[in-house]
Amino acid sequence: MIVLFTDFGWGGPYAGQVRAVLAQAAPGVPVIDLMHDAPAFAPQPAAYLLAALAREFPEGTVFLAVVDPGVGGTRAVIAVSAAGRWFVGPDNGLLGIAARHTGGARVWEVDWRPARLSASFHGRDLFAPIAARIGRGAAPAGRERTPGPGLLGPAADWPDDLPQVIYCDRFGNATTGLRATALPPDAAIGLGDRRLAHARTFSEVPTGTPFWYENANGLVEIAVNRGSAAEDLDLAVGSGIVVLPRAG
Amino acid sequence: MIVLFTDFGWGGPYAGQVRAVLAQAAPGVPVIDLMHDAPAFAPQPAAYLLAALAREFPEGTVFLAVVDPGVGGTRAVIAVSAAGRWFVGPDNGLLGIAARHTGGARVWEVDWRPARLSASFHGRDLFAPIAARIGRGAAPAGRERTPGPGLLGPAADWPDDLPQVIYCDRFGNATTGLRATALPPDAAIGLGDRRLAHARTFSEVPTGTPFWYENANGLVEIAVNRGSAAEDLDLAVGSGIVVLPRAG
Amino acid sequence: MIVLFTDFGWGGPYAGQVRAVLAQAAPGVPVIDLMHDAPAFAPQPAAYLLAALAREFPEGTVFLAVVDPGVGGTRAVIAVSAAGRWFVGPDNGLLGIAARHTGGARVWEVDWRPARLSASFHGRDLFAPIAARIGRGAAPAGRERTPGPGLLGPAADWPDDLPQVIYCDRFGNATTGLRATALPPDAAIGLGDRRLAHARTFSEVPTGTPFWYENANGLVEIAVNRGSAAEDLDLAVGSGIVVLPRAG
Repeated sequence: MIVLFTDFGWGGPYAGQVRAVLAQAAPGVPVIDLMHDAPAFAPQPAAYLLAALAREFPEGTVFLAVVDPGVGGTRAVIAVSAAGRWFVGPDNGLLGIAARHTGGARVWEVDWRPARLSASFHGRDLFAPIAARIGRGAAPAGRERTPGPGLLGPAADWPDDLPQVIYCDRFGNATTGLRATALPPDAAIGLGDRRLAHARTFSEVPTGTPFWYENANGLVEIAVNRGSAAEDLDLAVGSGIVVLPRAG
Repeated sequence: MIVLFTDFGWGGPYAGQVRAVLAQAAPGVPVIDLMHDAPAFAPQPAAYLLAALAREFPEGTVFLAVVDPGVGGTRAVIAVSAAGRWFVGPDNGLLGIAARHTGGARVWEVDWRPARLSASFHGRDLFAPIAARIGRGAAPAGRERTPGPGLLGPAADWPDDLPQVIYCDRFGNATTGLRATALPPDAAIGLGDRRLAHARTFSEVPTGTPFWYENANGLVEIAVNRGSAAEDLDLAVGSGIVVLPRAG
Repeated sequence: MIVLFTDFGWGGPYAGQVRAVLAQAAPGVPVIDLMHDAPAFAPQPAAYLLAALAREFPEGTVFLAVVDPGVGGTRAVIAVSAAGRWFVGPDNGLLGIAARHTGGARVWEVDWRPARLSASFHGRDLFAPIAARIGRGAAPAGRERTPGPGLLGPAADWPDDLPQVIYCDRFGNATTGLRATALPPDAAIGLGDRRLAHARTFSEVPTGTPFWYENANGLVEIAVNRGSAAEDLDLAVGSGIVVLPRAG
């Protein structure tokens, strides 16, 4: 299975052109559009989202991950193998948190380039053929890197969990980069002067009340029952949060 | 064929995660994303939309329908068999109109639960595996309900046709919950003081004129030729309409 | 491979209903959603976009193209064969630029009609079955037209390249209907009083600076590095541009 995780948006031809390359280069391999609205131009929040989502997929899955503000520049292209899953994308930190959370990751720097490489659409021209090759069961064409402090680019300096909003969905729920398992039981989340208590799910909370819960991918998420946390609490990707001890 | 009808939106990972479960649990069964912008949190209008859309699909189709504001609460999970098609979803009325319009529906209360069930994403964890099982040709795991007045939840009290707007599309066309066959020939539609005449199609009407027509799924739809009925007439999901006799 | 190029939007049931028809009528043929946000009601800009995108697809691809403001009226339905690819759609110019740019196109007027044809959704009822038939390897059911001045409808009067914005993407990049190969090397693009210089790609240009580049589909595209050209320069589909000689 090849899984697409990009910031292309559903609009425009971009995701479709990638799918067309995959259909030709890896016929018969199922392709799943996981997200096309990953945080645009923002590899850091996207990295935490990808790491959380990847856990749910079976061994053998190949993630084609493209959040790539440096397209056309000099950043490297990497393929990461971790716990039986593969990740293909730019070496800008995007794959770093999934690799770290999994542990035991191996990293290849991919030096294959297509005969014709556009300056602006490496998702189609470069990442998709690489992912298709791995999806067909071949090894990545490149050299394995020796792990070291610079492994996986800027992600080496990022924390294990990111106390920020990393995604707001259609309903205004605000996903953060904190894994729920990283919090003390019954911690509260602080947003400026506000203190949000924990609930297990929406139906436990009165209509209109903000709270936090462990979302279906294991992340701390801020929500308002039948309301929009993003609007009511003025949250967007990058909004900072703090973890508060329970007492008080 | 497994058909997705949800209010998840195309944004976010939700639809993709459901597709990934189906790809694993029902390999080789085609999956069609029919709608991911069904009326959010609103099982009633969604029920009339689903009923109209389902008519077009062949026998053997399994509809995975998720508009589920009560997720995490105590509502039951049901599977409905009607005219050779299957419907899987929450017991909140969402499947009730499709069952009633078809006639002869059988209903199972599904008591199977996965080993790990998130509090907020039953679409992925619960409804998708159930739909996959039925898509593979197995019977639902549960007990068949004896039909009765409470069958299919609150839908028992809903009318056969709903005189409201149930969907507004990209072009501003406003679909209603009225089947065109339920209207007298050449009836008009009343919106406050306005009276909209019938036309067969857009090209019969001058640019900018509001009218109603039978849409491609058999429903009364309010439109403006090369304009937006939703904007021009201030319509949204839930806007009430009345059926007027022709004369006058 | 059957490729969908429409103005249906991702919202609503339209694209899904078309995919369902194709899954039944051409089982096993891959279906790619290329674009569902082609310029709405606007066959002319859509025609230039389709022509540019089609180049990237392999022989044997069938494009199902629907931008069809005249649905329900009297426009003909055509199938075009050009350089081993097929195009199915309304005879309103939409297929004309792809045919012209390719050269050697053959055109069939398709007179097949389904037993039940809705007035408003020929994408599902008419174009999809025709595309499925061709996707299965059959010839179109109709008569081949003798090429002539009226071939391919109004497109006969359209220029080879269109000096207008034909699409704005999620990032605010504004695609034009000019092929980059049609410009003198290092030409500038004029927008009112502004003069935009050429760059190879985003990373060559300071943040916030507007420029033009050859996009990944060979078209002139106006962009702002890490900004929105559409917003900053007030561009939308239909905005006119001029090609300026380099000097000055």
